[in-house]
Amino acid sequence: MRLASVRTPDGGAQAAVLDGESWRGLPAEDLSQLFRLPDWRAAAAEPGDALPRAEPVNPVPSPGKVICCGLNYAEHIAELGRELPKFPTLFAKFADTLTGPSDEIALPADVDVDWEAELAVVVGRRLRGACEREAREAIAGYTVANDISVRDWQARTLQWFQGKAWDRTTPVGPVVVTPDELDPEAGVEVTCEVNGQRMQQGNTRTLVFGASALLAYISEFTVLRPGDLVLTGTPGGVGLGMTPPRFLRDGEVVRTSVDGIGTLQNTIRTQPTDRGEHS
Amino acid sequence: MRLASVRTPDGGAQAAVLDGESWRGLPAEDLSQLFRLPDWRAAAAEPGDALPRAEPVNPVPSPGKVICCGLNYAEHIAELGRELPKFPTLFAKFADTLTGPSDEIALPADVDVDWEAELAVVVGRRLRGACEREAREAIAGYTVANDISVRDWQARTLQWFQGKAWDRTTPVGPVVVTPDELDPEAGVEVTCEVNGQRMQQGNTRTLVFGASALLAYISEFTVLRPGDLVLTGTPGGVGLGMTPPRFLRDGEVVRTSVDGIGTLQNTIRTQPTDRGEHS
Repeated sequence: MRLASVRTPDGGAQAAVLDGESWRGLPAEDLSQLFRLPDWRAAAAEPGDALPRAEPVNPVPSPGKVICCGLNYAEHIAELGRELPKFPTLFAKFADTLTGPSDEIALPADVDVDWEAELAVVVGRRLRGACEREAREAIAGYTVANDISVRDWQARTLQWFQGKAWDRTTPVGPVVVTPDELDPEAGVEVTCEVNGQRMQQGNTRTLVFGASALLAYISEFTVLRPGDLVLTGTPGGVGLGMTPPRFLRDGEVVRTSVDGIGTLQNTIRTQPTDRGEHS
Repeated sequence: MRLASVRTPDGGAQAAVLDGESWRGLPAEDLSQLFRLPDWRAAAAEPGDALPRAEPVNPVPSPGKVICCGLNYAEHIAELGRELPKFPTLFAKFADTLTGPSDEIALPADVDVDWEAELAVVVGRRLRGACEREAREAIAGYTVANDISVRDWQARTLQWFQGKAWDRTTPVGPVVVTPDELDPEAGVEVTCEVNGQRMQQGNTRTLVFGASALLAYISEFTVLRPGDLVLTGTPGGVGLGMTPPRFLRDGEVVRTSVDGIGTLQNTIRTQPTDRGEHS
């Protein structure tokens, strides 16, 4: 199944499932709500009427947890001059950090903005102390994300969080594809283009920690619930790794794709700041 | 005012305000709900009936954001061999990470558990792009927390998060004291005892980044909302800083106090793990 949260021309919002070329309504306002239903798979199997001209928005707007893995593609790790990790490097974002698949991304003009194309995993069932098999069975589906990062703030201290949690900077979507239709462990391509130029390309088969391994690892210390989101890390080719570093400017367009899921297209909008008065 | 979330003998839960020696009920299930009321200060000024034998639990069980500052007391920074920071070191926890002021803290037997007594700030008004004056006016009150840390997991990667976000390990409470009754910038003592032995002592006057500065800084990148929680960092004297390092064992009792607020008392309970099967 290909699932989405859609905006309808009358201004409504609804969870939906793709049926041929058209979206059909599901009994929830969005996929965050749908995945919290006791049997969302059964609900998704009996969709309602077609929703003409429905437009995908952020599929999972209200995850309780958004957990990200850094340094998870072998070639990106090499690009940063680090060794292959024994444990996943994890950090958190908020639901507020997320934005839609075609939304503009607004940031101050005086920060260093970079791209990080990622496969994201949506949790479909409660997990705590899970083994990898349990974790695999708990995956609701996969979506595309871009962990847009404010590199100068990320580097201000040892902890990346303050460069990773800017409101409405991580686009997600356009759809969530269920595991029966997509197997990232067999390998799907993850790419990022800036203004039409290919910057990143990696294959999920080369992830050090795959989706199920990440969910199982996280569930050792905290519960995961339906609708929670886990970002699996980015392949080589980020702007920070270039000589000199290459950051995003006002009006530049970032296209983030995962084969078999779809493409995010987001324009960067930078705004002058009056930070001087406030610091 | 001294505010709390209390459990009543009939099993109910309620926000409450201290009136002399007795708790009186407020129109919300807990302080997280109370602070989301449009005018919670007016509601708190007109309390209901006395609640005999009410017992404080976690005052803010459902913050949307829990953000922590590390390396914020000059002497703790020296203990770890670091320089005074120009920017606050920030990381996130979850609402799930929190627990009550007298709850047991359950952790696996094979991890390195340490204490970090902290002053915590509860947000009382929406903040985004705030200056320090606006941030100061948005503080609902102050409470006590202990950022109990799993040091070996914290040190597994560059990011501390996975050692800081274990479910139900950060005790909070017992009360929230409003700013008219407590001024941490003028200085209050923060202490931690383990089995009755004083381990940590620091004064909030020596914080590198005070409560208002932290809230203003965070609000540059993400919105803060009523009920959100910010932990301000810990003074010197953690177990990791000792030679050899000293970690918490089953049955040990951690008492965490902030003068003018109150004391948390939490017993550590360690449990054998079957991690071998799952990894």
